[in-house]
Amino acid sequence: MNCILIELDDFIDRHLKKVCLKDRRAQHIRDILKSQPGDVLSVGQVGGKMGAGSIIALSDDSVILEVSLTRSPPASLPLTLVLALPRPIVMKRLLPAISAMGIKEIHLIGARRVEKSFWKSPVLEPEKVRTQLILGLEQSRDTILPNVQCYPLFKPFVEDMLPTLMAHSTTLLALPGAKSPCPKDIKTPITLIIGPEAEWIPYEVERLINLGVSAVHLGARTLRTETAIPLAIGRLF
Amino acid sequence: MNCILIELDDFIDRHLKKVCLKDRRAQHIRDILKSQPGDVLSVGQVGGKMGAGSIIALSDDSVILEVSLTRSPPASLPLTLVLALPRPIVMKRLLPAISAMGIKEIHLIGARRVEKSFWKSPVLEPEKVRTQLILGLEQSRDTILPNVQCYPLFKPFVEDMLPTLMAHSTTLLALPGAKSPCPKDIKTPITLIIGPEAEWIPYEVERLINLGVSAVHLGARTLRTETAIPLAIGRLF
Repeated sequence: MNCILIELDDFIDRHLKKVCLKDRRAQHIRDILKSQPGDVLSVGQVGGKMGAGSIIALSDDSVILEVSLTRSPPASLPLTLVLALPRPIVMKRLLPAISAMGIKEIHLIGARRVEKSFWKSPVLEPEKVRTQLILGLEQSRDTILPNVQCYPLFKPFVEDMLPTLMAHSTTLLALPGAKSPCPKDIKTPITLIIGPEAEWIPYEVERLINLGVSAVHLGARTLRTETAIPLAIGRLF
Repeated sequence: MNCILIELDDFIDRHLKKVCLKDRRAQHIRDILKSQPGDVLSVGQVGGKMGAGSIIALSDDSVILEVSLTRSPPASLPLTLVLALPRPIVMKRLLPAISAMGIKEIHLIGARRVEKSFWKSPVLEPEKVRTQLILGLEQSRDTILPNVQCYPLFKPFVEDMLPTLMAHSTTLLALPGAKSPCPKDIKTPITLIIGPEAEWIPYEVERLINLGVSAVHLGARTLRTETAIPLAIGRLF
């Protein structure tokens, strides 16, 4: 937790200057940071500005901070991630990594080799998704939650949603074995499509290519989703 | 498992043409790939060449393959990774990701904020390290195991080992908040130093900088080790 994130509910005065924290954030300040009254911490308001929080009081069950929120969070990554839904255990780990990297638009999509049961996983419950995304923001010192959309069916996503994304971005399909390498240092917004852990079926790749998506590889090696996404981002931006 | 990796012990003939697999690899071929006699699989010999394996026989407890190993594995990444040892749970997950990316030289080092107990974790037992690294090679279709060295003490590593690495590579310290961004598309071998999850102490950073290591950042966000490494690799190569 490199930054303490504050929710609107945490404010205890109407001028929005003082917050009272009682949960894992208070515990972190007390037990991990071992902070004392007077110490100043890095804070941010979810969806809002960042700044400093000075500890006014600290007890066994709560921490009171006086906050000054004046700085904007870091710029978002101009990237929309389209991700064939991975297994729930992988998804849970990916969410904080995705929000930590500054991705703000995530479309989770179905594919033939995405098991239908994955969509019923508790990992995808909105409150749980939010919790994981917050962990990534705390790690990377950011306040803006990504927007996560689910499209369990491949075809409607490709027909109804993808053309809109493509109209506003360079759209790349990360595909092991593609002829062209993933481009570097792109100056336009990007839509990056990452396939299922068990790969696409040929029809799905064909459908995307026919729409005008560019297939690109990330080197000679086939990487897992959680490695491929940051590696592609390192190349693209 | 995108590639079945064969060990020398698996060969059942003196011409090294036939192998008998009985463990999780046989299970994978039978239950996940649902292969049949006559099917041809992607195979490689640990430390050796890659090629094709044709299924000769398949039973409930074993698979016999006739292999032809003619291709070289993909080129190694010209990168030496120096990593302050993370928590065992993170280390276990990092090992397959590191080997999947093609890194062949890994130096795990101590630092003030690396807990001494981490060095005693079963995750670092050579046989367990090897198992995790093999998983990454199977994922990425490679056969060359990385070389992992442990230096529990920061000072002797920096004094005795680092100057040798620096003499043969561009040496970069990934440091959130550094003034220069991580360079792109480097043509020389790289040594990349990644700090502890709980950050370096100022003395350690100073020591590295005084030796001539260049501190570079990976953007405005502080990333976890498992995200920072692939992101840096995406930029560098």
